[in-house]
Amino acid sequence: VAKRLEKFKTTIFTQMSTLAIKHGAINLGQGFPNFDGPDFVKEAAIQAIKDGKNQYARGHGVPELNSAIAARFHKDTGLVVDPEKEVTVTSGCTEAIAATMLGLINPGDEVIVFAPFYDSYEATLSMAGAKVKGITLRPPDFSVPLEELKAAVTNKTRAILMNTPHNPTGKMFTREELETIASLCIENDLLVLSDEVYDKLAFEMDHISIASLPGMFERTVTLNSLGKTFSLTGWKIGWAIAPPHLTWGIRQAHSYLTFATSTPAQWAAVAALKAPDSYFKELKRDYNTKKEILVKGLKEVGFKVFPSSGTYFVVVDHTPFGLENDVAFCEYLIEEVGVVAIPTSVFYLNPEEGKNLVRFTFCKDEDTLRGAVERMKQKL
Amino acid sequence: VAKRLEKFKTTIFTQMSTLAIKHGAINLGQGFPNFDGPDFVKEAAIQAIKDGKNQYARGHGVPELNSAIAARFHKDTGLVVDPEKEVTVTSGCTEAIAATMLGLINPGDEVIVFAPFYDSYEATLSMAGAKVKGITLRPPDFSVPLEELKAAVTNKTRAILMNTPHNPTGKMFTREELETIASLCIENDLLVLSDEVYDKLAFEMDHISIASLPGMFERTVTLNSLGKTFSLTGWKIGWAIAPPHLTWGIRQAHSYLTFATSTPAQWAAVAALKAPDSYFKELKRDYNTKKEILVKGLKEVGFKVFPSSGTYFVVVDHTPFGLENDVAFCEYLIEEVGVVAIPTSVFYLNPEEGKNLVRFTFCKDEDTLRGAVERMKQKL
Ligand SMILES: CSCCC(=O)C(=O)O
Ligand SMILES: CSCCC(=O)C(=O)O
Repeated sequence: VAKRLEKFKTTIFTQMSTLAIKHGAINLGQGFPNFDGPDFVKEAAIQAIKDGKNQYARGHGVPELNSAIAARFHKDTGLVVDPEKEVTVTSGCTEAIAATMLGLINPGDEVIVFAPFYDSYEATLSMAGAKVKGITLRPPDFSVPLEELKAAVTNKTRAILMNTPHNPTGKMFTREELETIASLCIENDLLVLSDEVYDKLAFEMDHISIASLPGMFERTVTLNSLGKTFSLTGWKIGWAIAPPHLTWGIRQAHSYLTFATSTPAQWAAVAALKAPDSYFKELKRDYNTKKEILVKGLKEVGFKVFPSSGTYFVVVDHTPFGLENDVAFCEYLIEEVGVVAIPTSVFYLNPEEGKNLVRFTFCKDEDTLRGAVERMKQKL
Repeated sequence: VAKRLEKFKTTIFTQMSTLAIKHGAINLGQGFPNFDGPDFVKEAAIQAIKDGKNQYARGHGVPELNSAIAARFHKDTGLVVDPEKEVTVTSGCTEAIAATMLGLINPGDEVIVFAPFYDSYEATLSMAGAKVKGITLRPPDFSVPLEELKAAVTNKTRAILMNTPHNPTGKMFTREELETIASLCIENDLLVLSDEVYDKLAFEMDHISIASLPGMFERTVTLNSLGKTFSLTGWKIGWAIAPPHLTWGIRQAHSYLTFATSTPAQWAAVAALKAPDSYFKELKRDYNTKKEILVKGLKEVGFKVFPSSGTYFVVVDHTPFGLENDVAFCEYLIEEVGVVAIPTSVFYLNPEEGKNLVRFTFCKDEDTLRGAVERMKQKL
């Protein structure tokens, strides 16, 4: 393995989903629904295949999809973006993240990330040769330590990488936090790379795209995808929205990472993004019910549950059960209880910081959630 | 844009396909068919979507696909590979190439490539920080200059990157060439990265996978895909076959480049790879007819046509028509004649070397090929 990836282990999602299958455990680990995406989107993919939309798409996206993404972003943020020059379609948001790092970040650049974070951030920054500086979001509310953040900026800082609603904690960045980040970026001429794949799963407050703050669009890459919003995580349609000079770098990296993204899935995404408002309302309502079931259950089991405002994840303190750390707890949970959760220590630069916390997802049907709670009540 | 990508322009395939649409020209440029893939593969994708196979696949591939790839490779090469430890599914062969470079090559490593070459090779080697050493294959037969190759190996050489059947020239590596490359690699402990996406389009001789030569499997990454063989270039299913220690590096890079590949397309690939021998025979026969039409036509138009043994490309010398270089010729061809070809100078480290050559593809229905020839006869 090349040096840039030496320190990374098999991604935790693969580890845990493999163990889930092996032990026949209920998988509340990796973030994929155990129910299907909407029929109208599946029908659109089937129609595209039948219509012969099966050859290479344009590298940066089927034009109709670039337009649909721009239209959706306008609806969500009020920003008018040029679909031809400011939108790039990728093979999932994971590829959009990789293309952003490899397309825009130089060796030696410092990039600030908020720990805990999705593991691909650190790995792709390592591919880009960047130096990662972590700012830890701490329980109970995982708010941004603004003074620490300011102190972390140096003359080598190139970007702040953020994620709201935040995986794994469910924290949503408040307007005040976003405004402070924005001024810091404007003052120091920094980029913001903002992963917003859970934007439609915002329960306790409205999602705010940092790109929509004054002076910010020109320095922001907004990353999003189809998977979480349309319960089709396996289709791997993502995108990056950024001003033309940043889009150029992202597209160049994308050209050589995957060249283009699945053509029929892109046509289905066009249909998906035109979903009526009622679709998004219903999605949120359904997930809210699931969340209530899981949160209530986890509390009854005896966990300390931290409030989650968005995403389909919730983080708990497992220490009432007396296991040594998050990894040991998750092993016990799989082997003895038959439930999979994600240990959070892998999401920190310093794993010690995550040793008390594990993440559960509630993107499962209600019976599955109840079943998992039941197992924990009986065996934990 | 990050420094690692500064020297690269918009990929030629995007440039030319965009111009094709703009000028309403007949596109014999980028390698995608203007006919559809087989119904049984499309049906398998539709069935997978209907069956709810729409969530994240296992990172390195749906197990059934890893097995189908191993079985196909066994049939083709006689090699027995472990689908669980030696096969990685990626989002097209382009991603497999990127994951191989980023997963296995370190900054400062030297990698030998044969010019002309598919442009992603140089860009992904640049992402990996490698030093690219070019060995030029020269007309008329584009054979490997074996003494030059031997002389290019230094103590920093890490790998030889090859492609057979070869894009853009149609050259196929002979057994003798492969044996020389193999001994060179064994003597100097080098890897071979072998892009074999056109292996089923071998017309004049049998395709040989270098991995099948004695002592080579353990040092070879064999790269392939579904797109060219099944006329479904837009589905973006590729793979890398390599011994476990190399597969580890490739999978680590893949985990953070895209994480996983489209689930329904992977299930369709399972069906595709089980195609009967007759499918492959027919494919070859059909392409052979197309090739004959195009080659005969290009000769009648007045080009010097170089023999192509495999791929769906053919390279010609355009100088009889008096244009300054390949780019000028292709511009004239689009604007004045209404046909798109690919200038080859972008495929060389030194563009001068390609200035007399342009590439045409024959992956189009027969009427389109005849139409393109007709236009050239009339207007060139
Ligand atoms: C490849 S897993 C992507 C992110 C996610 O779904 C998770 O955090 O579980
Ligand atoms: C992204 S184009 C991939 C290779 C190909 O089809 C070509 O060389 O035309």
